[in-house]
Amino acid sequence: MTTDPIPSAAPSLARLVQELHKLPGIGPKSAQRLAYYLIRLPEEEAFALADAINGAKRNIVFCQECQNLSDSPLCGICAESQRNREQICVVEDPLDVLALERSHCYHGLYHVLHGVISPLNGVGPDQLKLKELYERLGNGQVKELVIATNPTLEGEATAMYIRRHLAGTDLKITHLARGLPVGGSLEYTDELTLSRAFQGRQEL
Amino acid sequence: MTTDPIPSAAPSLARLVQELHKLPGIGPKSAQRLAYYLIRLPEEEAFALADAINGAKRNIVFCQECQNLSDSPLCGICAESQRNREQICVVEDPLDVLALERSHCYHGLYHVLHGVISPLNGVGPDQLKLKELYERLGNGQVKELVIATNPTLEGEATAMYIRRHLAGTDLKITHLARGLPVGGSLEYTDELTLSRAFQGRQEL
Repeated sequence: MTTDPIPSAAPSLARLVQELHKLPGIGPKSAQRLAYYLIRLPEEEAFALADAINGAKRNIVFCQECQNLSDSPLCGICAESQRNREQICVVEDPLDVLALERSHCYHGLYHVLHGVISPLNGVGPDQLKLKELYERLGNGQVKELVIATNPTLEGEATAMYIRRHLAGTDLKITHLARGLPVGGSLEYTDELTLSRAFQGRQEL
Repeated sequence: MTTDPIPSAAPSLARLVQELHKLPGIGPKSAQRLAYYLIRLPEEEAFALADAINGAKRNIVFCQECQNLSDSPLCGICAESQRNREQICVVEDPLDVLALERSHCYHGLYHVLHGVISPLNGVGPDQLKLKELYERLGNGQVKELVIATNPTLEGEATAMYIRRHLAGTDLKITHLARGLPVGGSLEYTDELTLSRAFQGRQEL
């Protein structure tokens, strides 16, 4: 829409379409459809969305411990007293915390890096929340660091970087197993995953 | 998200995800991704979207003539002096006006019904902007009514309803040609479209 403005649409409508079109995954047609949908909504519902955007933007801060997004200085997970404080799981993104929480497989704390080392995109270690991670590890309470960056080139490189930085400490550093996704099939698994699954084979 | 609330997400974030998830075509995953995207945006850009929603909701009214969405009592098209005021094109939706305007094939006025007659969905003629259409036709300036409802069952029924209501007047009532879409192929055209294209064949 930015390149092809709507002819003869009302200005405030055109502006709404333009703003919606900026969102990731929202093309010009979807932006139009969403805009008309919002205009047809009862006032309080449309205002609720605008409010939610403003509210989230105003209230969300980084948790002072794990750097996850939070409404309060200490996030819900860090504030939970039942959490195992001897484990920290390092993830790239707040969405990764949600994914792990949904799996109910982990009950320790998290640390959100907010990115990965990616020289091509100009992201170096200093842009990540690594300083905050090393500070947390300083008090000696943490026994295991589970590095759960994505199994991509950049995720692996970031994991390596952290492992190297912490070499020599008596911290146990692990990463998530690579292997066949549950429900997948050997036939459609790529070679790299297959070889990792083979290397990591376990006794039945 | 409404049925499966995010565990341990910040409340204002969860609320934003919930509001986004209400939009048509935005599933729970997209809502999450959009919410995190919005939170990462520079403040002024996120506020711009919220503003655009509020602004559109506050400023948009129905054009007093054609009932299209407009920022002012008379919309841009109705206010244009070069328009042919002897033709009115009846469409279901504001988006249809945009589509026709983009084709640059029509230079008359429009009338937006804001729906079609659809007994199954409880929409009768009274819910549409038909009274306003008949009023506009009352002054005798209009010579042709182009009914451009969608070529669907409900669109055709609405067209028929309007034609029947205006029977006996000396108004020329037309509808858009049915036929092969440009760039389509005979092989993949459905039987109904093909038979309409055959019936409407034109001399070369």
